[in-house]
Amino acid sequence: MQNLSPELRSCIEECLRCHSTCLGMAMNHCLQQGGKHVEPQHFKLMLACAEICQTAANFMLIGTHHHKHTCRECAEICEECARSCEQVGGMEECVQACRRCAESCRKMAA
Amino acid sequence: MQNLSPELRSCIEECLRCHSTCLGMAMNHCLQQGGKHVEPQHFKLMLACAEICQTAANFMLIGTHHHKHTCRECAEICEECARSCEQVGGMEECVQACRRCAESCRKMAA
Amino acid sequence: MQNLSPELRSCIEECLRCHSTCLGMAMNHCLQQGGKHVEPQHFKLMLACAEICQTAANFMLIGTHHHKHTCRECAEICEECARSCEQVGGMEECVQACRRCAESCRKMAA
Amino acid sequence: MQNLSPELRSCIEECLRCHSTCLGMAMNHCLQQGGKHVEPQHFKLMLACAEICQTAANFMLIGTHHHKHTCRECAEICEECARSCEQVGGMEECVQACRRCAESCRKMAA
Repeated sequence: MQNLSPELRSCIEECLRCHSTCLGMAMNHCLQQGGKHVEPQHFKLMLACAEICQTAANFMLIGTHHHKHTCRECAEICEECARSCEQVGGMEECVQACRRCAESCRKMAA
Repeated sequence: MQNLSPELRSCIEECLRCHSTCLGMAMNHCLQQGGKHVEPQHFKLMLACAEICQTAANFMLIGTHHHKHTCRECAEICEECARSCEQVGGMEECVQACRRCAESCRKMAA
Repeated sequence: MQNLSPELRSCIEECLRCHSTCLGMAMNHCLQQGGKHVEPQHFKLMLACAEICQTAANFMLIGTHHHKHTCRECAEICEECARSCEQVGGMEECVQACRRCAESCRKMAA
Repeated sequence: MQNLSPELRSCIEECLRCHSTCLGMAMNHCLQQGGKHVEPQHFKLMLACAEICQTAANFMLIGTHHHKHTCRECAEICEECARSCEQVGGMEECVQACRRCAESCRKMAA
């Protein structure tokens, strides 16, 4: 990691944090709570967000210029996931992780 | 899988075949051959292609509308990987898998 | 893939088929059905099964001797997932994919 | 993540750090250096280590009891990867990340 730029390392960390938060909360909060927490549109978005965060991190680690495109897609999905979590309610940790990741990914995509 | 459309199932299969071909050839052909086969730009592209194919397949399986974006990115990287494999030479299997996957993903992205 | 043994290729295909079936059914059948289909123990098992199938396939593609261990773990989780799907009911496609994958992985683990 | 135990969270973080270090160094150090850094046995081990770290983290996030098995396998591969990095030389960051992850995973597997 030391031979990667600080901006890249920071964005990788945000992506991995957001991946962990989305997957962890989907599995250990949403499934337990049920109801609107497992409504397909919300739940699928949580898992799609976890997946694209992992991919965006891996693209930055591989070191390919295509990371700009995966970061842009990651930022969009994170924003949509944050809004969905706000509507469902009681998911502040996930809202925050998604917003921070989206902001970081937008910079990398520019 | 039976509740997914034939087009979606077909594209998922092409993505998984391309993922397997790129990862398998990078690890069991390129590393053995050495030389230009492990030149960073080519080798990174092989792994990035394997990764985006996996992600594109997973997005179609999750069933989110964002699969259009991951399929579009997948098609671009597959085309670039096919060209790189042609230049390196002796990688016809990979060229073919990438081209078929790119074609299938372009349809899903439309 | 052509430089991999037929046994290895066959097991990779079963793993990828089981991965697709488990992830696809969790997202497009279980979430829609609700009730016991999204009971945490069952649903987590579906996603853990999809994940280990992907990893077992990737280990065989990387071509490391550790694939024996990931195949053994994959066989165990697939069997448990098949039993859970039988108990929930209406998931024959998943039961079948899991059983076939478990059988194939047991041979690779031996 | 807040509803996961501190031990679990700590092990997830070590796994993700080791995943990033192994994938990042394979792609941005080993490929650049060439020679014994891209010798198949070493390079495959780096990628297998990155893969099992990601899987072990995901199993802990899913919250399945099978995480004990993936953590045990992760600890073994990390140790082997650390030894391989020591023999190749100039990969102290990777040796350290692998050793820390192995130690953390051994506790989770107990």
